[in-house]
Amino acid sequence: MSPVPDAVSVIAAKRDGRELTDEQITWVIDRYTRADGVADEQMSALLMAIYLRGMTEREIVTWTRSMIESGGRMDFSGLRRDGRTLATVDKHSTGGVGDKITLPLAPLVASFGVAVPQLSGRGLGHTGGTLDKLESISGWRADLTTAQLYSQLESVGAVVCAAGADLAPADRKLYALRDVTGTVESIPLLASSIMSKKIAEGTGALVLDVKTGSGAFLSEPGDARRLAETMVSLGTAAGVRTTALITDMSTPLGLTAGNAVEVAESLEVLAGGGPADVVELTLVLAREMLAATGLCDADPAAHLANGRAMDTWRAMIAAQGGDPDAPLPVAPHVEVVRAASSGVLTGLDAMAVGVAAWRLGAGRAVPGADVQAEAGVVLHAKPGDTVVAGAPLYSLHTRTPEAIPGAVAALDGAAVIGAEGQSGPLARPLVLDRVTV
Amino acid sequence: MSPVPDAVSVIAAKRDGRELTDEQITWVIDRYTRADGVADEQMSALLMAIYLRGMTEREIVTWTRSMIESGGRMDFSGLRRDGRTLATVDKHSTGGVGDKITLPLAPLVASFGVAVPQLSGRGLGHTGGTLDKLESISGWRADLTTAQLYSQLESVGAVVCAAGADLAPADRKLYALRDVTGTVESIPLLASSIMSKKIAEGTGALVLDVKTGSGAFLSEPGDARRLAETMVSLGTAAGVRTTALITDMSTPLGLTAGNAVEVAESLEVLAGGGPADVVELTLVLAREMLAATGLCDADPAAHLANGRAMDTWRAMIAAQGGDPDAPLPVAPHVEVVRAASSGVLTGLDAMAVGVAAWRLGAGRAVPGADVQAEAGVVLHAKPGDTVVAGAPLYSLHTRTPEAIPGAVAALDGAAVIGAEGQSGPLARPLVLDRVTV
Repeated sequence: MSPVPDAVSVIAAKRDGRELTDEQITWVIDRYTRADGVADEQMSALLMAIYLRGMTEREIVTWTRSMIESGGRMDFSGLRRDGRTLATVDKHSTGGVGDKITLPLAPLVASFGVAVPQLSGRGLGHTGGTLDKLESISGWRADLTTAQLYSQLESVGAVVCAAGADLAPADRKLYALRDVTGTVESIPLLASSIMSKKIAEGTGALVLDVKTGSGAFLSEPGDARRLAETMVSLGTAAGVRTTALITDMSTPLGLTAGNAVEVAESLEVLAGGGPADVVELTLVLAREMLAATGLCDADPAAHLANGRAMDTWRAMIAAQGGDPDAPLPVAPHVEVVRAASSGVLTGLDAMAVGVAAWRLGAGRAVPGADVQAEAGVVLHAKPGDTVVAGAPLYSLHTRTPEAIPGAVAALDGAAVIGAEGQSGPLARPLVLDRVTV
Repeated sequence: MSPVPDAVSVIAAKRDGRELTDEQITWVIDRYTRADGVADEQMSALLMAIYLRGMTEREIVTWTRSMIESGGRMDFSGLRRDGRTLATVDKHSTGGVGDKITLPLAPLVASFGVAVPQLSGRGLGHTGGTLDKLESISGWRADLTTAQLYSQLESVGAVVCAAGADLAPADRKLYALRDVTGTVESIPLLASSIMSKKIAEGTGALVLDVKTGSGAFLSEPGDARRLAETMVSLGTAAGVRTTALITDMSTPLGLTAGNAVEVAESLEVLAGGGPADVVELTLVLAREMLAATGLCDADPAAHLANGRAMDTWRAMIAAQGGDPDAPLPVAPHVEVVRAASSGVLTGLDAMAVGVAAWRLGAGRAVPGADVQAEAGVVLHAKPGDTVVAGAPLYSLHTRTPEAIPGAVAALDGAAVIGAEGQSGPLARPLVLDRVTV
């Protein structure tokens, strides 16, 4: 009966399965962001209705645009080096256990003369945050002014820093609400949250790493694919060259999950070594990102081998106040968990390892809490490896030994040891699919 | 992974269509009522999930019991008059337009020596509140102490008063939240809200008047039937003899919707006159209530004709400070809306009349707001009546003439005038169904 939208009528429309109008969506996002006429309890009812009823493509586009319009936008089109315009490309991962790929990837891609603005977040729950990991490097700081960000992109090429508060503030407020109301794992809400920040950031191209499996937000491959398609379509519609890879997160990436331990593993990759899966995913994503800026023939493996990627890493860390030569912090308490039987490791659950690292102090339960740089889990075997009864399976690193029993409990049953010769689920590939427009 | 409930895991369980455990339900209601660990925005997400996913019979029983246990209970089993134990019976209507039935009904039933404790609420939105209507009587007050309530039940038999704050406080808090989050019209939530208060109140028997049609919360007859069945089953399980009638609310009850105008119409019924539909529903409900206390042969029509019901009314009003002889307030502004054509009135929409009365000042948009005793709509024709172009259809009564255009707009199209001889939807009976265990 009301000609202007009001919160209850917008909630009721979505609740009853009707498509929201553009006017309803822009009104509800604007008023919620400004805390004028749409209260937290009203938005959370709407979010649950969206979670259960879904959104049409048009609704998702409008919802995303409204979140972008809630704040400012950046523009990287004026970046120059040696008189040349710099292409920009960004990568976003939906989050996984042991996912340190941004650390070697950003300097690797930047070493080809491309600008890589990685505006990142902090961790919450079982998945770590890239900024938390980098803060284990002495002196390194995540907060840059916009001017510092532009300047570092022109001089070094790679920047990993905190997103400014003015970028999609509606998303910041909505994400905090979703986190406490059971409305995180919704494809329209995940897609619009990620893409509003990336489009507002102003990158020219974007490669998405959409995780699937036990350690991911969306454990079903079909859901991951729908999320990837939605995001690729949102990015493309906004003029950002966007592609997505769907990658496996049933087992942790590499042999580490935590903060300093993941930095150390990233340094191995930048030095030309490191675990095969971390190297593989870094190279696949680097090729996608380089191709998106027109560098289709670039050979990123060469820049890992010849030290060019490591040089850019050192410049990137130093530009943000970090000392690339400082030793990484080491945990005063390390507990070794050993294999109970002999055989082949046929499964190692990503979620369990993520929860263990979190409980050891590597992650946080509430936003703003401190994390331990030293905390994390180091794996001594990966699926496919042969293990012997009594040999180490995991090392648990922490500053707080009272956290160890909880971490051990989280890992109970996480490792599946099969008879010798068995291989079953080991053949699962790391990159499952590629999604383009 | 958590052994004790937490808000997000309870929300997620219902969101994913799982049945909540008794422990989860009692925990979430208790913690929400005490504002300890379950915030408004979390409860509203859970309410939306319940709205869309529903609840099993066991969940509804536990939800209702938890709301009852959130506060105190009353016990009417010790009521006596002249040495005899008094039976108690209550009536609850799900709310409609022009529904003043409690006013003649409570004294009518009490005039047979039965105690009728009508703990009532105030109106919100387009349906009026019984207490708001009675407050148009000079001096009458809704707030009684528990001792006054017991004493009046023993002396007069009929009491219409405000429910104490200690009765199902969880429901009070939940209802306020549902009202602003689009989660009112849910069968499990409506049933548990109504029945938690009625069971906590301690009545021995209960007759439910479940409305269906445009002016009701649930416009579909199938939904009204499911609500009635759910409430009858909840009441019976709690030891309250409960039956329900499903009655029509597609057109207003009687010829008035408002406050003082409804009191005046109730007085006509108590004096042996009044509109046929109001008399019919009053008698049908009175017979149900009397039968529930064992008085199967009582003739309520006789007590309307011989003044016994009116005597009890006068005693009831006087016991609560009211002057039964004081003139009722009269609106200083009355606008007459006339028929645009001649013919038979084939429909008169209850919701439109309810909204018009509300806009004239008879109802409130937010809890705690004042209402106008004088405001309301008086109908000059009911479906089935012949009308002549230019004859009055409605009189709009108000203290605030600036409200009249909005009320006129709400009534636009509400009256359907058909060709002479047409009768179509007029044959709709008032009592559509009766539900027992």
